Amino acid sequence: MLHYLLGRPPRVGVRPGALIDPEPDARVGALTIYRMDFGGDADTRERTETDLDAALTVPSQEDHRLTWLHFEGDVPAADLARLGEAYHLHPLALEDVLNHGQRPKLDAYRYSVFASMALPFTREHECLFQQVSLFVGEDFVLSFHAGTHDVFAPVRNRIHEAQGRIAHAESDYLAYCLADVVVDTSFEVLAGYNDRLEELEDEIFDNTNRDMIEVIHAMRRRLIGMKKVLRSQSEMLLHWIGLDHDLIHADNRPYFRDAEDHARRVLDLAEGYYETAGSLLDTYLSLASTRLNEIMRMLTLIATVFMPLSFIAGVYGMNFDTRSPWNMPELGWRFGYPAVIGVMAVLVLGMFLYFRRRRWL
Amino acid sequence: MLHYLLGRPPRVGVRPGALIDPEPDARVGALTIYRMDFGGDADTRERTETDLDAALTVPSQEDHRLTWLHFEGDVPAADLARLGEAYHLHPLALEDVLNHGQRPKLDAYRYSVFASMALPFTREHECLFQQVSLFVGEDFVLSFHAGTHDVFAPVRNRIHEAQGRIAHAESDYLAYCLADVVVDTSFEVLAGYNDRLEELEDEIFDNTNRDMIEVIHAMRRRLIGMKKVLRSQSEMLLHWIGLDHDLIHADNRPYFRDAEDHARRVLDLAEGYYETAGSLLDTYLSLASTRLNEIMRMLTLIATVFMPLSFIAGVYGMNFDTRSPWNMPELGWRFGYPAVIGVMAVLVLGMFLYFRRRRWL
Amino acid sequence: MLHYLLGRPPRVGVRPGALIDPEPDARVGALTIYRMDFGGDADTRERTETDLDAALTVPSQEDHRLTWLHFEGDVPAADLARLGEAYHLHPLALEDVLNHGQRPKLDAYRYSVFASMALPFTREHECLFQQVSLFVGEDFVLSFHAGTHDVFAPVRNRIHEAQGRIAHAESDYLAYCLADVVVDTSFEVLAGYNDRLEELEDEIFDNTNRDMIEVIHAMRRRLIGMKKVLRSQSEMLLHWIGLDHDLIHADNRPYFRDAEDHARRVLDLAEGYYETAGSLLDTYLSLASTRLNEIMRMLTLIATVFMPLSFIAGVYGMNFDTRSPWNMPELGWRFGYPAVIGVMAVLVLGMFLYFRRRRWL
Amino acid sequence: MLHYLLGRPPRVGVRPGALIDPEPDARVGALTIYRMDFGGDADTRERTETDLDAALTVPSQEDHRLTWLHFEGDVPAADLARLGEAYHLHPLALEDVLNHGQRPKLDAYRYSVFASMALPFTREHECLFQQVSLFVGEDFVLSFHAGTHDVFAPVRNRIHEAQGRIAHAESDYLAYCLADVVVDTSFEVLAGYNDRLEELEDEIFDNTNRDMIEVIHAMRRRLIGMKKVLRSQSEMLLHWIGLDHDLIHADNRPYFRDAEDHARRVLDLAEGYYETAGSLLDTYLSLASTRLNEIMRMLTLIATVFMPLSFIAGVYGMNFDTRSPWNMPELGWRFGYPAVIGVMAVLVLGMFLYFRRRRWL
Amino acid sequence: MLHYLLGRPPRVGVRPGALIDPEPDARVGALTIYRMDFGGDADTRERTETDLDAALTVPSQEDHRLTWLHFEGDVPAADLARLGEAYHLHPLALEDVLNHGQRPKLDAYRYSVFASMALPFTREHECLFQQVSLFVGEDFVLSFHAGTHDVFAPVRNRIHEAQGRIAHAESDYLAYCLADVVVDTSFEVLAGYNDRLEELEDEIFDNTNRDMIEVIHAMRRRLIGMKKVLRSQSEMLLHWIGLDHDLIHADNRPYFRDAEDHARRVLDLAEGYYETAGSLLDTYLSLASTRLNEIMRMLTLIATVFMPLSFIAGVYGMNFDTRSPWNMPELGWRFGYPAVIGVMAVLVLGMFLYFRRRRWL
Repeated sequence: MLHYLLGRPPRVGVRPGALIDPEPDARVGALTIYRMDFGGDADTRERTETDLDAALTVPSQEDHRLTWLHFEGDVPAADLARLGEAYHLHPLALEDVLNHGQRPKLDAYRYSVFASMALPFTREHECLFQQVSLFVGEDFVLSFHAGTHDVFAPVRNRIHEAQGRIAHAESDYLAYCLADVVVDTSFEVLAGYNDRLEELEDEIFDNTNRDMIEVIHAMRRRLIGMKKVLRSQSEMLLHWIGLDHDLIHADNRPYFRDAEDHARRVLDLAEGYYETAGSLLDTYLSLASTRLNEIMRMLTLIATVFMPLSFIAGVYGMNFDTRSPWNMPELGWRFGYPAVIGVMAVLVLGMFLYFRRRRWL
Repeated sequence: MLHYLLGRPPRVGVRPGALIDPEPDARVGALTIYRMDFGGDADTRERTETDLDAALTVPSQEDHRLTWLHFEGDVPAADLARLGEAYHLHPLALEDVLNHGQRPKLDAYRYSVFASMALPFTREHECLFQQVSLFVGEDFVLSFHAGTHDVFAPVRNRIHEAQGRIAHAESDYLAYCLADVVVDTSFEVLAGYNDRLEELEDEIFDNTNRDMIEVIHAMRRRLIGMKKVLRSQSEMLLHWIGLDHDLIHADNRPYFRDAEDHARRVLDLAEGYYETAGSLLDTYLSLASTRLNEIMRMLTLIATVFMPLSFIAGVYGMNFDTRSPWNMPELGWRFGYPAVIGVMAVLVLGMFLYFRRRRWL
Repeated sequence: MLHYLLGRPPRVGVRPGALIDPEPDARVGALTIYRMDFGGDADTRERTETDLDAALTVPSQEDHRLTWLHFEGDVPAADLARLGEAYHLHPLALEDVLNHGQRPKLDAYRYSVFASMALPFTREHECLFQQVSLFVGEDFVLSFHAGTHDVFAPVRNRIHEAQGRIAHAESDYLAYCLADVVVDTSFEVLAGYNDRLEELEDEIFDNTNRDMIEVIHAMRRRLIGMKKVLRSQSEMLLHWIGLDHDLIHADNRPYFRDAEDHARRVLDLAEGYYETAGSLLDTYLSLASTRLNEIMRMLTLIATVFMPLSFIAGVYGMNFDTRSPWNMPELGWRFGYPAVIGVMAVLVLGMFLYFRRRRWL
Repeated sequence: MLHYLLGRPPRVGVRPGALIDPEPDARVGALTIYRMDFGGDADTRERTETDLDAALTVPSQEDHRLTWLHFEGDVPAADLARLGEAYHLHPLALEDVLNHGQRPKLDAYRYSVFASMALPFTREHECLFQQVSLFVGEDFVLSFHAGTHDVFAPVRNRIHEAQGRIAHAESDYLAYCLADVVVDTSFEVLAGYNDRLEELEDEIFDNTNRDMIEVIHAMRRRLIGMKKVLRSQSEMLLHWIGLDHDLIHADNRPYFRDAEDHARRVLDLAEGYYETAGSLLDTYLSLASTRLNEIMRMLTLIATVFMPLSFIAGVYGMNFDTRSPWNMPELGWRFGYPAVIGVMAVLVLGMFLYFRRRRWL
Repeated sequence: MLHYLLGRPPRVGVRPGALIDPEPDARVGALTIYRMDFGGDADTRERTETDLDAALTVPSQEDHRLTWLHFEGDVPAADLARLGEAYHLHPLALEDVLNHGQRPKLDAYRYSVFASMALPFTREHECLFQQVSLFVGEDFVLSFHAGTHDVFAPVRNRIHEAQGRIAHAESDYLAYCLADVVVDTSFEVLAGYNDRLEELEDEIFDNTNRDMIEVIHAMRRRLIGMKKVLRSQSEMLLHWIGLDHDLIHADNRPYFRDAEDHARRVLDLAEGYYETAGSLLDTYLSLASTRLNEIMRMLTLIATVFMPLSFIAGVYGMNFDTRSPWNMPELGWRFGYPAVIGVMAVLVLGMFLYFRRRRWL
């Protein structure tokens, strides 16, 4: 149901900050480490490793230089612990990197800021979320993606091209660029719901079948979870805008404001879709009710016309002994049959007029 | 569905502030530039151009003079970039001018204030929004309308007539005048919903058909999106009232308060219509249910009366050999037929009384 | 629908503060001006005029004296402009006096406070609102009522009797007295809904007809609009309590707090009625559904009993040639007829027991 | 409907603070006055009077002594006016004592604090509220109960026993004790709803009848009003906790916090019951719908089986002249009857299999 | 219904802070006392007692040493009073320990902080809450669990292992560890709802029966109560984060922030489940409505086909005297029977085409 919100439930009573590798079925894939060193006067250097030691050995002592380590896939708990020591990261934040399924949130510590985000992606028509975690320090940014596709490739390209503000090598601006990728991806995924809701609307007015209810319910259920995650994401960015921390440059505030604005648009969309899906279910119910009315009107018309007629025919099918003049003398009349048919015709006509007046026909 | 909220989705990973021309299908029309220079001691000058160079060349160095450049239609990304340099505009704000479908918002930068608004218009009974963007600086106002009809003509007329406060040539008052046009247009568009809801109400109590459900659903769906956009618009103006910025004169606050008040009324209307449409759907369902009850009561009356009668007629239509005195001796009775008819009449009368007591008749 | 909220829509592009007479169909009636001068050591003077000049000529130069001008009916735009000059009123506030249908609001200017309120009244079972506008200055109060009945007569009487605090001739206390009349009138009007809802409840449990749905829907629709107006009214008074302005005496705060408390009670009532009307519609739907169940159970009982019986009778009404010993030998049996009747009786009894067990009887 | 919220509507235009006796039908009962003087070094003294003069004559000039006057029943307006003078009470607060049905609220004046609360009680299965008003001064507490049962007897007992903090004779602590009685009584009354909702649930799954809908609707309607009153009560206590007034001792804050906590629990209960009653109505509707489905399935089974059979029997009941070899030769067949019965049996079997496959049986 | 919220209702008029043993049916089990002394330079000591005297006698005078007393089961009122004296606890807080069913809350007193939490557990598929109360002082933590299973065993183990921050022996960190256990247990319990909702969804699309409605209603009802309790729990932790008290170390704030974050996730889950269960009921109603439509269509088809046919057969079963040439001459025709059968076949075909066109087949 609410898969992302559930995530990996915390283990009761375990020491806070304890780093424990996830169970095999909660793993996401092999680790790839992307390291970039850029800014200052030296050249931009990029390396791709699968081993933490190799990634950490790159010297980065130059002045005004920013190191960005991006971890794609499962980071072993032991490596994470070493990272924590190397960069003075808070154990609770490290624990949150391992325990996927955190609510998007921002925790400011003395020497670094930790942010956890939810990156939506679509698998088999299901919208799921993968956790993206960020540590922003004075001269480093660490990012973790609990997935296996290289989401931040466009940002690496922009660093190589050294276009725009990213060339200043400010850690919070780089963090904004990563957050921006996450938010804009949400936008893309949400936009997909638009088309499916429009299709559903067209189908619903054409015919009603149960599968449609199942689809609408599944969509609402998913949007319930998404709304909560996306609201947290938007609040997290709002928190970031207001953050009073040495690591955050006033000049970069407009960028976070922009990201927050996009996150709010995404949230508005998710809420709008949820309300629309609800309205669709109401509409479905009204349509089904209208159709039932039509069907029952048909049935009632048929029954109202033919029951009296059949009854009359039944009466004259009785076998009373017509030798008694009191027993069904109509049977012996010369024009008995035409008379009965006439009576029936008059009945049908009368009903027809009655139904007309009640607007049933 | 939520067209305006969707707008032009941001491209994932693109450099923030990158100015990219929209795809051909997202273009709105050819560009017209209206330039006005007014205030100070000199005369008011107005020029209409289709080319940025021509619009920028007008000398405007006089003291206390305000330049207003209004861009109607698509502004090429290259021109926008030049404008940004000329007026020291923030790249993120410029990007928002190009990417239509922003949430109404206000961003205050050091030398200018950027506002994005949503101007509603009606096309084929659909309420859509077009983006209006404003830059307010010390001695300039830039406005952009992602549409092709000249919405701000009345404001230009007022400048020519130099009536009222607009003659003071304050940039924030001019911005207010433009915001006022956008809000009052929203009011006009919303007022149209009133008549359509009243028509729907009248129809719904007269007859029920499926088209009406479709119309109500479409209206609710649209109002879901409008509520969100109009709420952002109202919040944006509230933000403006509270803005502490050199460009905002305290004397002009009451005007923004007035615009915000109108925006709230528009939002109240949209919310009221949404609730009314919801109530209408509930009402429709109740009406359909009442009608079904009436139809089924009719059917049940008919069946309850005629089924027993037909059964009796059926019994006396059986062909048992009446030579046995045990087999349907009634058939041989002298008054068998009148007796049966009498029994039937008594039955009908009894049922009639029963239905009366249950208030079914 | 939401008549009051709609009010007189602003004209797009018109100069803010422009005073334009309403169209003939938006007029409310001829103007009567009530002028009172009281407080200080001199006597209380009251005059009733239909002409602004006459009303303005009364000398009021005495010390510590309060002038109250009440305008009942349509004030010509030209007169309003003169008033504005005489009392230094803000043009936007004057415009709001003319454009009926403002949201209740409070605008504090340097030399006066402007308040707009909504006075409910009932016409043909419809609850409508009339605008009451107030200007509160150092030594004057101007009030405007867009209607024709003299709502503030009791306040004038109290001034004549010089009872209580009103004799102090403080302009803000007089304003409170007027606001109090508006709020208490709302209370009276809302109380009328109580009786109608109770009647509706009684009716709904007695019988179901479509008119009732129409009445409930109309009531909800009206309450949607009233809730919004009354919430604004309550917020306006809250705003007044918190107002930090030279014209507001701290000693009079408790009075405004009292008015606000009453306005909140009125709002609570309107919200309560709206929820109750919603619950009533749910109840109606459940009742209709229960009745349908009863009707259908009846129909099913009848059909279930008589269809098999009629079938049996039909079988023995077939005309197979009984000369063949295989063709319906029952017809020739001595006790064929009683046997068939017996079988039918057993069938009915069985069904009766079956229905009993399923609690259908 | 919302009896308590309605209360005694304010009279339009009457002077604020005017003390007017309620109409005879709004009276609650004869007045009893309980006076206690306690604290300081002297003994606790208690007197019960029916006359204000007698109650006021008790000397209470000792130092550090607290006087508590409790008025049970209708207080004549004249007596209230005299009390107001004696204790310097604000006229608006006195008016609120007389006008029962105030929203729970707290008004802090210079020399006293006025609180109005709603005491729930049950009469004929209806939950109603009676107003309890409190004035808290330096050395006095005045309490008014618009009812006739002696609700504060336990508090008087505690004063006599001089147990705990009440012996300190602080006026605000005594006020807390009275508020505590009101809140805890609310709790008891609300707890009664629990049992009734559980009974309703059991009944609803056993059988459906209209009375139950009436009961649920009545409960929801009442809870709508209670929620509003209890929310005000909780807000009033929150207001009290935050009150910065000489009369409020910091040491007693935890007690008000405790009372507020209980008031919130009571409010949570009321809201929970309201939601549960709503869920119950939804459930009722679903159950009714399920039952209708079952009934109609039954009807359809019967009709589907017997209509074709009856038709076949009807065909062979036709009286075509069998002398023509083309007219119903089956009638003359030797095994005509068994053949027809066989065909019928095959039909029934086929339908049975069909219904099985559609899971209707 | 809302068992936890109801809890043990306060007794009206009883002295606040009075410690009264609960009635026998509200007792939870025999008392076990776990005492741990740890921190400083001395060894960690643990003792398990069933008697308060034994638990209190352990000397704990060493410097920088923390005493943790955990009470599992019913604490006699007399023992609680002695504890209160020994540790200077506020009587209101002690009363809340005895009166189970408090809303989760935090009360800060001068020398200690009192927190009350709700620990969920599952009994017979019902989610219930047990109260956990905490007193946090300078050098002691007292915890009370109104249940009988030893929930805090993992924390005791961690103290023995002296792993991580818990070895610092700070009272607020220990309190956090206990709060963490409560919150994480909530998470586990809530996760169980996920599976049950998924099962319900599968069942609902397979078949509809009333038991399912009962299950959904019961789930919603329970979640109504849980939402309220969990929201209070989350607010309580938020309150703790913001608490400015000597006993709270700034270094431990991130831990409470983490606990609050988990509590919010739990609350999000409960709200999500509640909305999902609501959507499920809507879906159920829509499905039932669709099924009814299908059934009625079937019935109408059958009736529409066979009623006219049976009527025709009935007509030719009438016994008119065919000696008159006007009476049913068709009976004597040579091809009368085939003609009638043909007419019937044409009728059936026509209806079939009609139903096809209306998409009923």
